[in-house]
Amino acid sequence: MTPLEDVEILLVEDNPNDVELTLRALQKQNLSNKVFVVKDGAEALDFMFASGPYAHRKVDKRPRVVLLDLKLPKVDGLEVLRRIKTDSRTSHIPVVMLTSSQEERDVVDSYNLGVNSYIVKPVDFSNFVHAVSELGIYWGILNKLPY
Amino acid sequence: MTPLEDVEILLVEDNPNDVELTLRALQKQNLSNKVFVVKDGAEALDFMFASGPYAHRKVDKRPRVVLLDLKLPKVDGLEVLRRIKTDSRTSHIPVVMLTSSQEERDVVDSYNLGVNSYIVKPVDFSNFVHAVSELGIYWGILNKLPY
Repeated sequence: MTPLEDVEILLVEDNPNDVELTLRALQKQNLSNKVFVVKDGAEALDFMFASGPYAHRKVDKRPRVVLLDLKLPKVDGLEVLRRIKTDSRTSHIPVVMLTSSQEERDVVDSYNLGVNSYIVKPVDFSNFVHAVSELGIYWGILNKLPY
Repeated sequence: MTPLEDVEILLVEDNPNDVELTLRALQKQNLSNKVFVVKDGAEALDFMFASGPYAHRKVDKRPRVVLLDLKLPKVDGLEVLRRIKTDSRTSHIPVVMLTSSQEERDVVDSYNLGVNSYIVKPVDFSNFVHAVSELGIYWGILNKLPY
């Protein structure tokens, strides 16, 4: 279990199969030990803003990227994105939508709310693993943050 | 020469060596035929907003990504970024800083202006090529745009 202060990739995903596939892909890039998984939008917000069960977390320890599903229980992905991008404590944190939705409305809304990138989950197993690997390398290693 | 309407990657770079290296890296991913290079910030703005020598370009044909150097002649990279991100015709277009600057001020300013990602040019030749290849795959292929 990754200590909360060391989390570099926050994965917000309620589908257990997608969680498993994503972790497997990140493991190939030696990134899986920095991942923390939350299963709904409310828990994602608690993590990001150090509230509720995450009240002990230091809010200034920020992940390198948030991988965010769109359709989530409790609080949906677009609302989580909005909260992250409108709070000066978190607005610089890259958020990548990782979703099966290709609906134009979802893509437009995400860009309007300031998403850094939007990735459609490939349906095919090996394409999914490949996409998540690329994504992990890009945001987990290559991209530079202001802190 | 890429027809202007087919440009998928706009590279804004005044250093001829970096242009050559970047094109070579993109060529490895079969992406170099979609690249258009401009050498200063004023030309970048003319391209983006279809003015000056690019007045004949259709402004609704948008590149998939703009790779933007920071220190540029005529208009600097941060100003180009600001103009792109504050105009509703272009604000959704991903902009990636590709720069040798690691100065915190530059990184913070870029994120404040809404940059999608910030990549520090690796000094080492093969690392540079590798980084640009990843970048090309990510924004040229994987990332989904709202149009």
